[in-house]
Amino acid sequence: MNITHIEHLGIAVKSIDEAIPYFENVLGLKCYAVEEVPSQKVKTAFFKVGQTKLELLEPTADDSPIAGFLEKRGEGIHHLAFATDGVADALAEAESKGIRLIDHAPRGGAEGLNIAFLHPKSCHGILTELCEKPKK
Amino acid sequence: MNITHIEHLGIAVKSIDEAIPYFENVLGLKCYAVEEVPSQKVKTAFFKVGQTKLELLEPTADDSPIAGFLEKRGEGIHHLAFATDGVADALAEAESKGIRLIDHAPRGGAEGLNIAFLHPKSCHGILTELCEKPKK
Repeated sequence: MNITHIEHLGIAVKSIDEAIPYFENVLGLKCYAVEEVPSQKVKTAFFKVGQTKLELLEPTADDSPIAGFLEKRGEGIHHLAFATDGVADALAEAESKGIRLIDHAPRGGAEGLNIAFLHPKSCHGILTELCEKPKK
Repeated sequence: MNITHIEHLGIAVKSIDEAIPYFENVLGLKCYAVEEVPSQKVKTAFFKVGQTKLELLEPTADDSPIAGFLEKRGEGIHHLAFATDGVADALAEAESKGIRLIDHAPRGGAEGLNIAFLHPKSCHGILTELCEKPKK
């Protein structure tokens, strides 16, 4: 698998509006986009830190996966997303090496990326996302 | 606070020897160092992913903070470390903005960095580390 860098870190928060001041005023980062992703039942806010983005995730429905995470664990880091040059190939390679997949094929994610998730039980407890920029 | 990038992600694992094959053979990363940090009662293994390192943390004693984390949460992301150009100034700024500090002054961490931790209760559930390279 050819991973180039950490594309983003997903961070579960109860309220984006309440969290943004910490990231902006304390850490000194700048929120450059807020996007709702109805398929995932989340509202997202993005910050850039060097090569990597921080993606705040607020649930927009009680049955959002983020609502379940917040109930079980509280706020905190939800997933780790790596940038690769080919998600489909990376999934095939991971599966051939015995990794449990959540997504068996790339699908559309936030910011127009192609994404897929590996199961945290195969990834030392880390919900792991693979991302690629779509080919033009 | 002037944060330039994510210096590393700390990942709690039960056994570094059992975890390294996942990071090397599945993700394709290369472990470039293994270091024991007796003051923290951990053994660490380092991988580079773009600008950021992954730092695996295995407890070396039952009263290691990582042992407590594993018992409570299981394996997974333990902390998020930002690179700054001045940890002491960043701590003072964070405290002035009402952030609860774990360390009130920089101390020595792995890889010779000066480090300090902010309390996760003030950081949306994220145990947050600030790092700087020591001045020569």
